[in-house]
Parts: sequence; C-alpha cells; structure tokens
Amino acid sequence: MLSKTDKELIKKAYDTVKHVSEREFGNVVVAHVGVALRTKKGNIYTGVNMECKCDIGSCAEHHAIALMIKNNEHDIDIIVAVDRNGNIVPPCGRCRELIYQVTHNHDVNIIVLHSKKVTLKQLLPKIWEETYYKDVK
Amino acid sequence: MLSKTDKELIKKAYDTVKHVSEREFGNVVVAHVGVALRTKKGNIYTGVNMECKCDIGSCAEHHAIALMIKNNEHDIDIIVAVDRNGNIVPPCGRCRELIYQVTHNHDVNIIVLHSKKVTLKQLLPKIWEETYYKDVK
Amino acid sequence: MLSKTDKELIKKAYDTVKHVSEREFGNVVVAHVGVALRTKKGNIYTGVNMECKCDIGSCAEHHAIALMIKNNEHDIDIIVAVDRNGNIVPPCGRCRELIYQVTHNHDVNIIVLHSKKVTLKQLLPKIWEETYYKDVK
Amino acid sequence: MLSKTDKELIKKAYDTVKHVSEREFGNVVVAHVGVALRTKKGNIYTGVNMECKCDIGSCAEHHAIALMIKNNEHDIDIIVAVDRNGNIVPPCGRCRELIYQVTHNHDVNIIVLHSKKVTLKQLLPKIWEETYYKDVK
Repeated sequence: MLSKTDKELIKKAYDTVKHVSEREFGNVVVAHVGVALRTKKGNIYTGVNMECKCDIGSCAEHHAIALMIKNNEHDIDIIVAVDRNGNIVPPCGRCRELIYQVTHNHDVNIIVLHSKKVTLKQLLPKIWEETYYKDVK
Repeated sequence: MLSKTDKELIKKAYDTVKHVSEREFGNVVVAHVGVALRTKKGNIYTGVNMECKCDIGSCAEHHAIALMIKNNEHDIDIIVAVDRNGNIVPPCGRCRELIYQVTHNHDVNIIVLHSKKVTLKQLLPKIWEETYYKDVK
Repeated sequence: MLSKTDKELIKKAYDTVKHVSEREFGNVVVAHVGVALRTKKGNIYTGVNMECKCDIGSCAEHHAIALMIKNNEHDIDIIVAVDRNGNIVPPCGRCRELIYQVTHNHDVNIIVLHSKKVTLKQLLPKIWEETYYKDVK
Repeated sequence: MLSKTDKELIKKAYDTVKHVSEREFGNVVVAHVGVALRTKKGNIYTGVNMECKCDIGSCAEHHAIALMIKNNEHDIDIIVAVDRNGNIVPPCGRCRELIYQVTHNHDVNIIVLHSKKVTLKQLLPKIWEETYYKDVK
C-alpha cells in the first residue's frame, strides 16, 4: 500500500514531465517520462528522460540521481517514474543497476504500480558484485 | 543443475577472457570478464568487456550480443559471464535489460553460479514495458 | 579572448565541483569535473560527473544539459567544464555529440582554455548527419 | 584520395550491413549502418549498429572495435561506416572518442566521403586528456 507521501511523490513525478514540453530538441526526444525521488533526508529530486540518436542519452531516473549527487546526497529512500499519461513505469535494468551502484542499499523503495511499492532487491536480485565472489567452484 | 553443455559454455566464456591480454589499450581496460552465449540454433557467440573513460564502454554481454546480431540471430538460449579467475558473474542491470530488449523472451537461461542457472524473468522481474500499461489508476 | 561573463561561468563550474564531495557513493565516483552552461536566455545550469561500474554513468556536461532540458530550454550559448584543481577540460566526444544533438547549432561556444573559446564546429567537424547524405558516390 | 584497399574496405562495410536483416529484434533496431576497420596488422573487423530503448545500445563502430579487442588487437589503421544505401557515415562523437581511447593515436584514418579520408585528429581536435593539463591559469 502506498502512503500519502508516496502518492505526493507520484504527483511530483507527473508534474515534472507535464511541465516540460514533449518534443524534439534537435535529435533529442525529451519528456516521455518524469521521475521523482525522495532521499532519507527528505529532499526531493526530479528529472525527465532524454533519448538521443546513437544511444547517448539516458532515462529520467539517471537525471534525478545526477541532480541528487550534485546536491551531495546519495541515500535514496523511494523513487518513482511516471509517463505523460500518468502511468507508473518501473525502472529499466540500467536504472536499477544505477540505483544500486549509487546507494549500495537493497532496500530502496521503488513504486511500480499505483497501489504497490517494492524494494530494489525485488527488482534486481542476484546483484553481480555481491554474488559472484561467494560462488563455489 | 547445470548440464554438460552448460559447463562447456562456462569453459568457452573462460577461454575467451583468458585468450585476451588483460591490459589497457589507451584508456580502455579490457578483459576482466568474458561472455559466451548459445542461441537456440546452437551457435555460440563470445565477447570480452571494454571499460572506458567517460563511461562510453560496455560489458562483455553487450559485445557477445552484438556479434550474434551481426550474424542475423537474436534468439538466446543461454548466456554466462566468467571473470579471469573463473568466477561466474551475473549480468549487471543494463545487460539484463539488453537481453530482454533483444529477445523479448523471459525464459532466456542465465548461469549465475557454477551450480545454478535461472531465467531472465528471475533476474529482471516487472519489466517496464510489460508492467506499466497494465496498471490501474 | 574570454569576456568577464565567460570568466564568471568558469568560476560557476568550479564552484559546482568544489561544492560536492569528491568521493565514492557506492561504486559511483563523483565530482572530478563540474560543468556550467549558459543558455541564450541567460540562465545557467550546472552538473558534476558520475562515473560508474559497467560504464552506465556520464560526464558533467550530460547532467547540466539534462537539467537545462528539464527547465524547458535547449539553446546553449556557452559551456565550460572545470576539474577540482581549476583546470579547463574540453568535452569528450560523446559530450560534443550531445551538445550538437540537443542544439543543432554549430556555433555553441565552448571554453577550452583559460584564454580561449571555440565553436562546436571546431570541436566536432563533419557531423555525421550533415555530411553523409551530401556525398557523391 | 582513396586507394584500392580503401575502396575494398568500404565494400566490406557495405556487405556487412547488407548481410544483416534490417529489422527489429524485440526493441532493438539493428543494421542501419555497417562498419569495417583494418588494423595495422592487416586484419579486418566488422560490426553493425544496435539501437535500443533506454539508450543502452551502441553504434556499429563500437561493435567492430569490441571484436578487434577480443582478438587481442587495438591498433586501427583505417575505419569506415556505410549505411544500407551505400552512403558513407562519419563517426558520431562517442565513436570518435572511443577510437581515440582505444588507440591513443591521432593518425587513425577515417573515411568520411567516397572520395576522402581524414585523420582522427581532424575529427576530434583538442582531445580532453591532452589539452587540459597544458593550460595556463
């Protein structure tokens, strides 16, 4: 179940993407998806996606995280992505990896449906750097 | 449990990384990790990682997959990554996403331990493009 | 020659990277380099780099540009990157490509030395999308 | 002016992309562009592009270079990209950067028109790692 503050975060992500014109800047297609994350300190950072030719762009999560880092924070409590129509979008694999690499915390909350949040561990089990050195040959 | 051909694939990945000098070419650090994948047609494709400055490189999975595509195939049956010491390395999030985007098949087999293989679905649950449009607001 | 406002932009980039702790957040190494860009409207956007394992990060330019886009702007007048020691860092190839894709403007100014700015055209001649269809077979 | 072997390399790049079905594998659009490179040892490596959702793919140059590295080579003599219609495509900025990072050689030849080759230095002047530490504050 989502709390009232979770629902406010969804609205924040939605407002972010609605606020930006969905259009092409040159070859760059922006603003299909908006992201809002809240850190454990309670600060909120947002971003929109930036799709490029030659695969040099990145998702909205990437940009919200970069903004957080610029503000000297890295400890994500919860994150959510929303498209222009208000649909929740679970993070792609690269974004799951980035969330882990930045936080080293399996318990980051990720909202994946309007009625559901899960932990990073549930979306990215068997993380490479934790798994491989424990194997027995 | 792994089959005999699974174990042969692990050896193939290991041989790939051992065959390449682990060193820096310019700023590019190569050959920490080797990958071998087998397609449903039974062909095997391999790659080694290529880490770059400015984050412009990619993992060994990326290169084995690109080689498969160049050979007009996309249907991965099973894939494994091995480091220079023979340890199995589960794919990072970006590689999990790429495996899905190329195959659109949840049931691709991924070897994650010397004694265990799982399906892509187990490593990348709640794939964004399958999840978000089914949500109820 | 650089103008007074150009020098202020260099200071802004420097302040951005100095403001952020250079350290590792998890596997992510941040804040070697800070970037400041000024748009034609006169707004300034900043970012710091984010280097990751598996090459899933990006340069400081990437993040300053993403922030600009989130604010519904794309028209870069001038951009500069500075490292923690105050050295000017010309953009890498990917960032040059991104500046072009976002602006479609060859005349974006890029500060490459403490005493010199050049245009994007000088750093990225023969842009692929402008060149190849004009060729004669 | 191009030599006979240069023209053969163009044909090799063209054959590579023509050999692969231009289609979507899942979300991945492949084979707009083919690349062939020849190393100083005289070996030829080829690749086709792989465009993905979430910007997790890469250009044809990337894959030809990865194949070269897997074969323990890094010294590129000359490289060319060709689209399905036989047009020469100059490398994007990321590929220029990658060519430099892999070779650390400004004099790599790059075919940019059917009648013209240039050096990497001409396509990527003021390389960041060579420039910034020589500046005078």
